[in-house]
Amino acid sequence: MSKTYTIAVIPGDGIGKEVTPWAQKALEKAAEGVADFTYEPFDLGAERYLRDGAILPDEELERIKKTDAILLGAVGDPRIKAGILERGLLLKLRFALDQYVNLRPSKLYKGVTSPLANPGDIDFVVVREGTEGLYCGAGGAVRRGTPQEVATEVSINTAYGVERVVRYAFELAMKRRKHITLVHKKNVLVNAGDMWQRIVDKVGEEYPEVTHDYSHIDAATIFLVSNPSKFDVILTDNLFGDILTDEAGAVVGGVGYSASGCINASNEYPSMFEPIHGSAPDIAGKGIANPTAAILSAAMLLEHLGFDDAAKKIHKAVEADIEELGSTERSTAQVGEDILARI
Amino acid sequence: MSKTYTIAVIPGDGIGKEVTPWAQKALEKAAEGVADFTYEPFDLGAERYLRDGAILPDEELERIKKTDAILLGAVGDPRIKAGILERGLLLKLRFALDQYVNLRPSKLYKGVTSPLANPGDIDFVVVREGTEGLYCGAGGAVRRGTPQEVATEVSINTAYGVERVVRYAFELAMKRRKHITLVHKKNVLVNAGDMWQRIVDKVGEEYPEVTHDYSHIDAATIFLVSNPSKFDVILTDNLFGDILTDEAGAVVGGVGYSASGCINASNEYPSMFEPIHGSAPDIAGKGIANPTAAILSAAMLLEHLGFDDAAKKIHKAVEADIEELGSTERSTAQVGEDILARI
Ligand SMILES: CC(C)[C@H](C(=O)O)[C@@H](O)C(=O)O
Ligand SMILES: CC(C)[C@H](C(=O)O)[C@@H](O)C(=O)O
Repeated sequence: MSKTYTIAVIPGDGIGKEVTPWAQKALEKAAEGVADFTYEPFDLGAERYLRDGAILPDEELERIKKTDAILLGAVGDPRIKAGILERGLLLKLRFALDQYVNLRPSKLYKGVTSPLANPGDIDFVVVREGTEGLYCGAGGAVRRGTPQEVATEVSINTAYGVERVVRYAFELAMKRRKHITLVHKKNVLVNAGDMWQRIVDKVGEEYPEVTHDYSHIDAATIFLVSNPSKFDVILTDNLFGDILTDEAGAVVGGVGYSASGCINASNEYPSMFEPIHGSAPDIAGKGIANPTAAILSAAMLLEHLGFDDAAKKIHKAVEADIEELGSTERSTAQVGEDILARI
Repeated sequence: MSKTYTIAVIPGDGIGKEVTPWAQKALEKAAEGVADFTYEPFDLGAERYLRDGAILPDEELERIKKTDAILLGAVGDPRIKAGILERGLLLKLRFALDQYVNLRPSKLYKGVTSPLANPGDIDFVVVREGTEGLYCGAGGAVRRGTPQEVATEVSINTAYGVERVVRYAFELAMKRRKHITLVHKKNVLVNAGDMWQRIVDKVGEEYPEVTHDYSHIDAATIFLVSNPSKFDVILTDNLFGDILTDEAGAVVGGVGYSASGCINASNEYPSMFEPIHGSAPDIAGKGIANPTAAILSAAMLLEHLGFDDAAKKIHKAVEADIEELGSTERSTAQVGEDILARI
């Protein structure tokens, strides 16, 4: 008999609601016979907030903490002031569940047209720190709305927080092409950058097979365009990881093919899997959002729970689907059905 | 008789030394008959620092303050710990001379091959704030080198500092295609992002002809790859501007064609003109660095001093040179001579 896992499902806003059911279906089908899932749906996001003002009530957070993993769609709605849902729901989950590894693979699939003329063979993973840096909310403002206003944003970085994600990156590199590129801006952000570099150097000594180099964030955005195949594992902080993974998504032909995991690698709390695209209000409700990234996030969830073979089934199905049909216009449901049929 | 201007020349490090003389020659030739220049060279950068430990002595800064404008090459040397020269020399100049507008045009010249398959017509300007944000050096560290280390970086943003650069951007937009895109990360950096947005909205009311929209920094890195021709004026903070302009440089075929101005728009202190590329230690000393960006920075200097016709001569010469010879391999001197011959 296969074990049953409880999955929290947070479709969220916009196209998040349209693509998440396909992630569930893919999960289900790929894990047939090896794992069973029960789903606990959470009505969180813009609709809920507009209805009763709730963003992420404690009681619901506690229930989420008890699940085995989370499938998230997307968060964000133009009717709501920027930051409220992002910080109150998405980032609150990442922080409260201590999801310190934000894992974002970028791969150029056969059949996808990259905007680059000569993209080469793109296959790297960004390991983005998920619980520190400028995302910690430690800023403020005085004299708001006056000519004397001062607004601050504080990036907090700890050796504890950096070392654990650095270790994760080295372990990951050992399973891949054994190369890490640290990305920071250590010529300007000398305190945080210096700490990141020292910790990478120190941990690197324990992994003599892994080579590592360094790139400033500005230079890294150049390499993503001029020579993206040079990267294997990119290791970086919360904000730089946010920026690089969107650019990387564009370079591999659109964020519609990019999934991510917000991982609590010590397994104290559930990890969360989501497409890296947003709620896309401009196309929401039309049934045309591509569910591929959401389906790939289900594969990451399976890998995280240890079901590598089931995850591979999804990856293979997605690869075959994109190679054959990637350039045809299809509805959300059509892409979903096509991929499901191959799992 | 034409007026004489004093130009501080800081070739700096690496290829900075190789390209700066060509900027001077171009300046000279383009302004023949309308302005005369005397040059005050400053021996600042890695060599000087290694020789006598000086980075930017007060006395030299005072002399620089008395000049009419500055030509800078590049700063940075692998022998010196990251941050020392960047913060002690380059950023110190930008801050001490209150160069609050960091102006960075991006243009895809005919004859240059963009890494994008379908680049379209790229011609935008990034207006990057130059004296605030994460560049102010307001971070620190405790328990350095221990497992309890905490390192911070503080972004300081003032209504005073933001409003003046926002006004500059609107004035610039009036002379261009009348569209501004504010780039920030206001869904996470809610204090600073909210202030930027409010000030843009407020100043925007005085410029009803100029439309403005907003993009998160992560999304902006996507648009630079997927649809760069959508931009006219990009308005953003110090760090996001640093990142976007390097990516933009890549998209228009390499930072070798991108110049920048660090402008004190109230003219209390001299403004500074530099290529956006760095000191490129890997190719320094070989005589192969492309002087085009440096030469274009001379054109920006001329515009700043009010010599628009002279500046146009340089732009035309560069455009013609790139269109005809952009794809041929030439030495620094050859490119320099070829462009000079057309001025
Ligand atoms: C929505 C936003 C807060 C989020 C982030 O900045 O992390 C998103 O851009 C992402 O990359 O997951
Ligand atoms: C060298 C460095 C400090 C500088 C910056 O970050 O501003 C450079 O990258 C630039 O863009 O001019």
